[in-house]
Amino acid sequence: MTNTQVTLVQIDNYGPWTVTPEPRREVDLQTLQSRLYADLSQLIGNRMGYVFFTRFDNMVAVTNGLDADAHALIQESVGNRYPVTVSLSIGVDSSPAAALGTATDQLQDAGSAQDKGRTEILRGDPIQPSERTDTDVQIAHFDVNDATGKYTDQLNEFDSFINIEQGYAELMRYMRHENDSLSFFVGGDNIIAVCDGIDEAAYLDAIEHVNETVGVELKVGVGLDRTAQAAGMAAKHALETCREENTDVEFAR
Amino acid sequence: MTNTQVTLVQIDNYGPWTVTPEPRREVDLQTLQSRLYADLSQLIGNRMGYVFFTRFDNMVAVTNGLDADAHALIQESVGNRYPVTVSLSIGVDSSPAAALGTATDQLQDAGSAQDKGRTEILRGDPIQPSERTDTDVQIAHFDVNDATGKYTDQLNEFDSFINIEQGYAELMRYMRHENDSLSFFVGGDNIIAVCDGIDEAAYLDAIEHVNETVGVELKVGVGLDRTAQAAGMAAKHALETCREENTDVEFAR
Amino acid sequence: MTNTQVTLVQIDNYGPWTVTPEPRREVDLQTLQSRLYADLSQLIGNRMGYVFFTRFDNMVAVTNGLDADAHALIQESVGNRYPVTVSLSIGVDSSPAAALGTATDQLQDAGSAQDKGRTEILRGDPIQPSERTDTDVQIAHFDVNDATGKYTDQLNEFDSFINIEQGYAELMRYMRHENDSLSFFVGGDNIIAVCDGIDEAAYLDAIEHVNETVGVELKVGVGLDRTAQAAGMAAKHALETCREENTDVEFAR
Amino acid sequence: MTNTQVTLVQIDNYGPWTVTPEPRREVDLQTLQSRLYADLSQLIGNRMGYVFFTRFDNMVAVTNGLDADAHALIQESVGNRYPVTVSLSIGVDSSPAAALGTATDQLQDAGSAQDKGRTEILRGDPIQPSERTDTDVQIAHFDVNDATGKYTDQLNEFDSFINIEQGYAELMRYMRHENDSLSFFVGGDNIIAVCDGIDEAAYLDAIEHVNETVGVELKVGVGLDRTAQAAGMAAKHALETCREENTDVEFAR
Repeated sequence: MTNTQVTLVQIDNYGPWTVTPEPRREVDLQTLQSRLYADLSQLIGNRMGYVFFTRFDNMVAVTNGLDADAHALIQESVGNRYPVTVSLSIGVDSSPAAALGTATDQLQDAGSAQDKGRTEILRGDPIQPSERTDTDVQIAHFDVNDATGKYTDQLNEFDSFINIEQGYAELMRYMRHENDSLSFFVGGDNIIAVCDGIDEAAYLDAIEHVNETVGVELKVGVGLDRTAQAAGMAAKHALETCREENTDVEFAR
Repeated sequence: MTNTQVTLVQIDNYGPWTVTPEPRREVDLQTLQSRLYADLSQLIGNRMGYVFFTRFDNMVAVTNGLDADAHALIQESVGNRYPVTVSLSIGVDSSPAAALGTATDQLQDAGSAQDKGRTEILRGDPIQPSERTDTDVQIAHFDVNDATGKYTDQLNEFDSFINIEQGYAELMRYMRHENDSLSFFVGGDNIIAVCDGIDEAAYLDAIEHVNETVGVELKVGVGLDRTAQAAGMAAKHALETCREENTDVEFAR
Repeated sequence: MTNTQVTLVQIDNYGPWTVTPEPRREVDLQTLQSRLYADLSQLIGNRMGYVFFTRFDNMVAVTNGLDADAHALIQESVGNRYPVTVSLSIGVDSSPAAALGTATDQLQDAGSAQDKGRTEILRGDPIQPSERTDTDVQIAHFDVNDATGKYTDQLNEFDSFINIEQGYAELMRYMRHENDSLSFFVGGDNIIAVCDGIDEAAYLDAIEHVNETVGVELKVGVGLDRTAQAAGMAAKHALETCREENTDVEFAR
Repeated sequence: MTNTQVTLVQIDNYGPWTVTPEPRREVDLQTLQSRLYADLSQLIGNRMGYVFFTRFDNMVAVTNGLDADAHALIQESVGNRYPVTVSLSIGVDSSPAAALGTATDQLQDAGSAQDKGRTEILRGDPIQPSERTDTDVQIAHFDVNDATGKYTDQLNEFDSFINIEQGYAELMRYMRHENDSLSFFVGGDNIIAVCDGIDEAAYLDAIEHVNETVGVELKVGVGLDRTAQAAGMAAKHALETCREENTDVEFAR
């Protein structure tokens, strides 16, 4: 059974800040958001976690291996370098969706995302080191079959994007409802899902569902390990195996 | 009539690079992609353009006011600072979708996105300064009504995200097919669309369509100007008017 | 005669901020400072200016070609993305040192660098476009003869650094007092000086002085143009000529 | 007795790269260098180390607590995100200067800094965890007495800078030769020295020497701990004590 530690990262009171005293230049907001995400990728990633940009003002991270001190350091480092601060809330569950549910509840209990007085919240309990196992995190790395040949090199770029986006929108919803999994678009034709130790049949079912519903053909490599980084790298290698052997689902060995 | 100048930014041969010689660490790829986008936001944004992250390996920019030299400088600056290079292709049309179609065609003609020998392409003709007008770019800035109150402060963050994402997926498709417009999620509950000078009825129709189809309620501020930055800032102010006056569509005066 | 436009960039009330409420983590301060400098390099550099890190909390830029609006945009963009703000003060003079003197005076008149109420000052008048000429900026690019062979590949790195640093400390002082020029270490074994249209004899004299005083052998390429970027690139090519022809001073033709 | 672990970071074959095929735009080189330094500050800093920009193409880090894997990860992460690679060489000694000497020797033995074939070297042995103690690193944080009042708010900014720079050049040389210590300018009026467990008399002597030689008045806070970060933060607090109690040297208790 997996045991996923999820951290919800929320920029404090961000919406109001973006229009105070006047709406701020969009390109500066875009720069701020994407650089904050890049920094979190390094801060969390170099401790073997993964973070996903999600809505940028709310980001979701898989943080198995990061203790409370590591979270506090990340929060402090952001506060020292950005005009905004972040709140962090940690949830743990075999189901990634339930873990994020716990993390969200804790943050909502502390106050609204647009409450000026609710800043730099740090809630939740990381997994104890003694309870960690080598099968705590399952990561599935999907991509689209021959996306470059079928889309990028053929269609208007926006239509390529629509195809990828419809595939993603369908997969994210299906995986959430059928498998308690959290799926994130990570650029190109790639989607990374954090899963509750689901099996080959479940992956095949999701791939079929997306193909039947929106006509986008996916394949997936799956890895299982102690941290998001280790599981994710195993998933990438498994995806390479899919490519070489022309298969739809591969589990890392 | 609008006259949108669109630039397609494509990372050269990116897919193969990400797995050569072995799959690279995902967090480094995420950092690279989001910082490249941040840099383009500044490079293009400080010349009054807008750039959208789209798929990150393919980004779409509105570049009215940027001539060929400005494009060449951006291309050179990226080449000097990243392990990857970018190709740029410029299209101009009253229809943003058609402009991007031209830009895409030009780049596809130059070779595949995964052709090792096709690097740092720069194609297409910017608008001549003498032909530019104060109504060349129409920008529509949408957001979700009370997203914080209805979603962020209530739901599991992933379910908030699913709602925003379904709203976006529906809007992008509808605006593309009905209005030749290009719509981009820009974080939070915000979507920015580059439009072909469409009117209030067309915006109301799109908002109704999204509400009926996926139950997400949008409002929109619309600006028209010489550059994306000026039109976009006007749109933001118009969106503030929607908020204050509780209306669905506002055009900047 | 040159006509250098210099901008002093000063982080507002930075010293007190770094220790409020407690001393902030040094690595975050270093990250903040060097990224702010990197951003200014792009914001100013992509408008054909040069900026030097100097003391990081006070930076000096050569901004021929940047008008007041460009300065205001840079100031706004920093304010939107950093936890600190910057003041900018512009001076113009045939002497770079005198231009910086004017810029400094204007900022000192506005209040102390550690005055909480003195933020985002923007003072001084850029050169009128009609008064700009192709010989407004002289840039001299120095490097150390065979620094890799004599220092980097031979000495303890700190002793290499001491040599470079003593060479720089001597050159900066001499060029300031003898030639009203501003010299900046820019990394490696490179020093860039902004000069008042001085001639070959003055450069040879400075090189001799440094060699005699601290035993560091320099050579220099010199460029003259409308902007720092153009003059600086010409200087780099001239320095390549020094390397190829084994000469001490070369002026770009 | 201190036991400093020093890592020399050297950009591989950087000089030739900056002029190949033609000299690259200086502002892009400045951006690249300062961002690489910022990234290393985070990568090393968030593992409790310190890194100093030194010459930018050669940087010096204090890395007590970073093992070989952490070094390898940093090297890989840079290689994934920059157009250049870095070599890393680790030395350990009670004398910081000797530790850097070892690190430099190892890298020089591997080949020239401008040898195309010598890339991504990783040499040297970090301290074994069992051998680490709470007094391994001594950090001294100097600043200039009333630098804002005497220099920044009074003089031409370049003359302020000359004063700070002369103070630094004198201190770095003296501390290296008298105390085997490595001193680095870190911006503003701040100098951080990595020291070989020297005592109050040695600090007072250095301060007097700088004052007598170049007329710059320094004070210093000193911290001793297991890591650079912990020792450095203690030093900052001790420096605050100097400010409050108007003393020249304070050791953290």
